[in-house]
Amino acid sequence: MKCLVTGGAGFIGSSLVDRLLARGDEVVCYDNFDTGQIEFLKGAQQNPRFTLVRGDTLDVDALTASMQGCEMVFHLAANADVRFGTQHPRKDLEQNTIATYNVLFAMKETGVRKIAFSSTGSVYGEAAVIPTPEDAPFPVQTSLYGASKLAGEGLISSFCEGYDFQGWIFRFVSILGERYTHGHVFDFYQQLASDPSRLKVLGDGTQKKSYLYIGDCLAAMLRVANRGTAKRAKHRVETYNLGTNEYVQVNDSAKCICRALGLKPKLEYSGGNKGWVGDNPFIFLDTKKIRATGWKTTLTIEQSILRTLQWLQENQWILQRR
Amino acid sequence: MKCLVTGGAGFIGSSLVDRLLARGDEVVCYDNFDTGQIEFLKGAQQNPRFTLVRGDTLDVDALTASMQGCEMVFHLAANADVRFGTQHPRKDLEQNTIATYNVLFAMKETGVRKIAFSSTGSVYGEAAVIPTPEDAPFPVQTSLYGASKLAGEGLISSFCEGYDFQGWIFRFVSILGERYTHGHVFDFYQQLASDPSRLKVLGDGTQKKSYLYIGDCLAAMLRVANRGTAKRAKHRVETYNLGTNEYVQVNDSAKCICRALGLKPKLEYSGGNKGWVGDNPFIFLDTKKIRATGWKTTLTIEQSILRTLQWLQENQWILQRR
Repeated sequence: MKCLVTGGAGFIGSSLVDRLLARGDEVVCYDNFDTGQIEFLKGAQQNPRFTLVRGDTLDVDALTASMQGCEMVFHLAANADVRFGTQHPRKDLEQNTIATYNVLFAMKETGVRKIAFSSTGSVYGEAAVIPTPEDAPFPVQTSLYGASKLAGEGLISSFCEGYDFQGWIFRFVSILGERYTHGHVFDFYQQLASDPSRLKVLGDGTQKKSYLYIGDCLAAMLRVANRGTAKRAKHRVETYNLGTNEYVQVNDSAKCICRALGLKPKLEYSGGNKGWVGDNPFIFLDTKKIRATGWKTTLTIEQSILRTLQWLQENQWILQRR
Repeated sequence: MKCLVTGGAGFIGSSLVDRLLARGDEVVCYDNFDTGQIEFLKGAQQNPRFTLVRGDTLDVDALTASMQGCEMVFHLAANADVRFGTQHPRKDLEQNTIATYNVLFAMKETGVRKIAFSSTGSVYGEAAVIPTPEDAPFPVQTSLYGASKLAGEGLISSFCEGYDFQGWIFRFVSILGERYTHGHVFDFYQQLASDPSRLKVLGDGTQKKSYLYIGDCLAAMLRVANRGTAKRAKHRVETYNLGTNEYVQVNDSAKCICRALGLKPKLEYSGGNKGWVGDNPFIFLDTKKIRATGWKTTLTIEQSILRTLQWLQENQWILQRR
């Protein structure tokens, strides 16, 4: 199968590219290298089935040209910067919502009818039900990021209905592992690298979050994406939460990192039960639906954190390259 | 209070403008006259507290300039053409989603912090629970229109959270009454005006829909918009379904219209349980939340249909002016 991966030079995207190539697919990687890293594609670039296109998802013509002959799109390109949404509100609109529209429009123009999408548990806002199932009560958006991803989900669903596309929407918790380039483990590691004596923690450290290892995330996506939807399915789009069956407090995570690095920094809290405006103090997704397909996680959250730390230690360049 | 009404020359917008002026407000009407009618503003234009701005919601500079000094925005401008969404998919994105972003951005720039928004029952897709409450299970979007309005809701909620705005979101069923310019009563009336012997009905006529009289819709909006949210409210945005406590089949509605006009046309069905791609065969909203505020409907659906017919008969110009 020939696939296009938007955001294919990113943390998750480049890892997906490698998996698709490994299973024999032809892969077009489409990335604007805003946060993507060419280093992540070093392996892929050795493969004759790999094509790299430097392009922005706002450039619908380039997107359309790149999509010719593809059977499926993995749409992972996004502004994944949840925390600073209110500092540049248009970024989420453009890079997440309008970009998703452009991907769908390019699909319509080129006859590509299958799409897998990286959404987020943030679309549940401060969920009324925890662990939060896919059919949780109608959520209230609390971040520009979540709102922009929800808009992307809605666009995908309505294109599936209106143009007979098939869609697979994945609502991720935070992903950890090799090629991890941003998020709390990154921030903590970076802080401790520059000053091992203290560690600033956003909020009061009691925020409860769930994390998933990149390998498990990709295994889940590839298990269900492009699988036929149930014959009597009401809709042509399937939505899956992706996460582990556990959560940790930010404090636990900080302790685990300090222990692994052999450090005893003074923890300094910014206070409050949220790390930033729109932060959700408790994210824990119900993953019964994806687990019912036989998928299992291979790493616990703690193991994922350690794996991430190990990769950061072996790839110090990423601290400078951001 | 000084308010800006986007889409203020439309069916619902111009009716709201008149109510706001009647209660003593200063009103800026912002409309691109794509579907708005200057005739609807004849009364308002006599009022010194009324200002008319011809502008598009995609023109963020004009929007920002028009919003100066306002305390609240009623954001009603939209592409309300649910049926033909798949023929021009970008229109819903631009006129509903990006437009709503622009309104919010202009508010942020001008310090306006209150917004009321006309959303739609279409955001529930083919609802799993009927009558459908505001906190229904997480919906799957079935129309570009519904998806674009859901995106608008998400933007409003996240701006409320991120910038301390207050928002009131109203999910409408179809609205009927004076100044009605599109929808099934309009279509049926127009068809019968040109050929009283036959009436084409989209779908099989068994689609069940709920309708609300424009006067009742506005009374509900003005009852709760700008009312403080509950002190211990979790969010700074309140969402209300607006509809009647009943629904009718399209067939019932057609019969009622024919009876009122004294006609016995042959009914010709296009077939299927949907009128068009993305049509919902059963729309009936749970309106307990708005009724708990003491609000009541004054007209039944049948009375609203008759009132609409009467207005169309007295305003034949609207058939030509579309």
